[in-house]
Amino acid sequence: MVYFDNAATTFPKPEEVYKFTDKFYRECGVNVGRGQHKLSSKASFLVAETRKLLLELNYCPSKKVVFTSTATEALNIVLQGIEIKDNFNIYITPFEHNAVTRILHHLNKTIKFNVKQLEFDKDIWQYDIPKIEKQFQDNAPDIVIISHASNVCGVIAPVKKVTQISKKYNAINIIDMAQTMGLLDTNLNGNDIDFAVFAGHKTLYSPIGVGGFICNENPKIKPLIFGGTGFESANFDLPETIPERFEAGSQNIMAIAGLNASLKWINSIKISKIYQIEKKHHSRLLDILKKFNNIKLISPTNALNSIGVVSCVFDNYSSDNIGQVLSDNDIAVRTGLHCSPNAHKFLETFPQGTVRFSVGYFNNDYDFEMLEKALEYIYENG
Amino acid sequence: MVYFDNAATTFPKPEEVYKFTDKFYRECGVNVGRGQHKLSSKASFLVAETRKLLLELNYCPSKKVVFTSTATEALNIVLQGIEIKDNFNIYITPFEHNAVTRILHHLNKTIKFNVKQLEFDKDIWQYDIPKIEKQFQDNAPDIVIISHASNVCGVIAPVKKVTQISKKYNAINIIDMAQTMGLLDTNLNGNDIDFAVFAGHKTLYSPIGVGGFICNENPKIKPLIFGGTGFESANFDLPETIPERFEAGSQNIMAIAGLNASLKWINSIKISKIYQIEKKHHSRLLDILKKFNNIKLISPTNALNSIGVVSCVFDNYSSDNIGQVLSDNDIAVRTGLHCSPNAHKFLETFPQGTVRFSVGYFNNDYDFEMLEKALEYIYENG
Repeated sequence: MVYFDNAATTFPKPEEVYKFTDKFYRECGVNVGRGQHKLSSKASFLVAETRKLLLELNYCPSKKVVFTSTATEALNIVLQGIEIKDNFNIYITPFEHNAVTRILHHLNKTIKFNVKQLEFDKDIWQYDIPKIEKQFQDNAPDIVIISHASNVCGVIAPVKKVTQISKKYNAINIIDMAQTMGLLDTNLNGNDIDFAVFAGHKTLYSPIGVGGFICNENPKIKPLIFGGTGFESANFDLPETIPERFEAGSQNIMAIAGLNASLKWINSIKISKIYQIEKKHHSRLLDILKKFNNIKLISPTNALNSIGVVSCVFDNYSSDNIGQVLSDNDIAVRTGLHCSPNAHKFLETFPQGTVRFSVGYFNNDYDFEMLEKALEYIYENG
Repeated sequence: MVYFDNAATTFPKPEEVYKFTDKFYRECGVNVGRGQHKLSSKASFLVAETRKLLLELNYCPSKKVVFTSTATEALNIVLQGIEIKDNFNIYITPFEHNAVTRILHHLNKTIKFNVKQLEFDKDIWQYDIPKIEKQFQDNAPDIVIISHASNVCGVIAPVKKVTQISKKYNAINIIDMAQTMGLLDTNLNGNDIDFAVFAGHKTLYSPIGVGGFICNENPKIKPLIFGGTGFESANFDLPETIPERFEAGSQNIMAIAGLNASLKWINSIKISKIYQIEKKHHSRLLDILKKFNNIKLISPTNALNSIGVVSCVFDNYSSDNIGQVLSDNDIAVRTGLHCSPNAHKFLETFPQGTVRFSVGYFNNDYDFEMLEKALEYIYENG
């Protein structure tokens, strides 16, 4: 199987991740923080170490990591947890995932806030900072939600710049790093970014089952999920301590073990090297796609300001047709709307969607050769 | 390590579960319902088969399985999803976990419902059905939440009887089967039980990371978690279809693969045989504990109407002290309140808590011999 669906989940994972996940779960697969026996202590130590590794990766050792099961759950905790008021101005990018837009749509039924889109220059595939400054001047931002890189077209948002500006208005800044943490070297230190959401199973190369957010020591959000926390059990309410307040229920020690291994793998290779390899694969993918004049890119044509996620449409065939032909050739891509209908509306590929190719660290020559052959076949039979 | 903390999580898991989880994740660890390629189809097939196996285990093939990350999340979706009104009568058992009581406490801050406790005869460790009938006559139940078996003292609730009675009042019946599904042969067919919550990593012997609930085809609850569902992406709202409406975000294919294997393992051994082995271990545990007159059981003294979860207190030592001595002897138990403060209040072991021993299918002679030795040591030095 030739795998170009890494934006959905990276596949395969590093061998170290598979091995350690299996080994740790076999040897220490017990509950965290819910017993004083040695296995439970080992599991608790592993979780604490994983939080530390994640904070170090993002240069913010004094912040907090809250683990959830998915990035979607993390976004729900953050967005449903903030006290949003009528007339709030909530800015989003044109590329938000349904994990953001469906929550906002739900909340907007009872709270009359305004959702505004950050200005983006389609001609050059870049956010328009002067226009964004103007937007903020005209309508001061209360909350800014930024998809760090689009899961449809790969465009990277200048999160440092935008959050620096919006923070002048005391906006709460939320960065969706599902497609970027572990790939883009990002400094989350300081107060500009209030919440950085991550998905373990994507660019962090961990197994599925762990996501979460990085936040300040005292995030002003109310909890969404209530339940046992393994300590302060006599308290009718959740404890006030972070991260425990947002981690009710048994933690996924298996996925966290995998994340522990994948963070060590990232450190051993270095994030800059992973980025460089991904960039090489991204450029090679673009070079191949650009050879065929029946393919129209719906993404930046160079790899500079985007991650290795490339959408395109094909002459004469729907994206689902193309997906099927590629699948018949054992090539995995993803077609359709990619849970991001707004992005497709903005890119004028709604409702038909696109064919999305997304590379990862582990793509190899064979993958690209097979892809080129399949695209040749489609071109010749188009 | 001698492991008597199976009520927290069963450990170890069947070898089949470790092997299949690792193998499937290595070979097919991709996203479910989010691509048309072959790996994604295999993953989707596995999830569908796992739902079917779970429904067959509970004799309710036409019901629906909603997968969540934990039983806690499932209880939050159900309890926060029901339209609870002022003056509702919500009945619970004396043994509810914080995963129920903390949710109710939270909801009770804004909705003025009444929480009542189902009548239980402490002298014979049994629910008092005539008194419960009277309770329902006096204050008709709107919602009944029953911990199928207590995670503190092991007592089994007569869920069929109670839900049959409460259904006459059109109550919504919710069964917390975290400690029982896969162990107690339970028929969930029919309309008496509206929601049956399960935790994969306990008596279902799956890896951590999957829980959920079984419900009717059209459960009347609103969603708690909003996000992408991989289809109907153009819809601003979550799809109306069950289970997708309650499963936003990437599904934990790794844990579900493990649950698939553990359900097949349960079927191969048969649930009646697993119950019989657990009963044998439970009786042996009780026999050992009863030998020592410095130990006071806070659980039924025979294995008949309870699962293999036994709480006790020791003369002269706190439960934490005992836990530490046992841990020093490489014996894992759990001490304290077990996230169930109400149960301890009812059993008069609050706030000091108990030492909880919980057996599983995989306990062996060595475990019981080591336990007996350690208890002798405590007795002699007591």
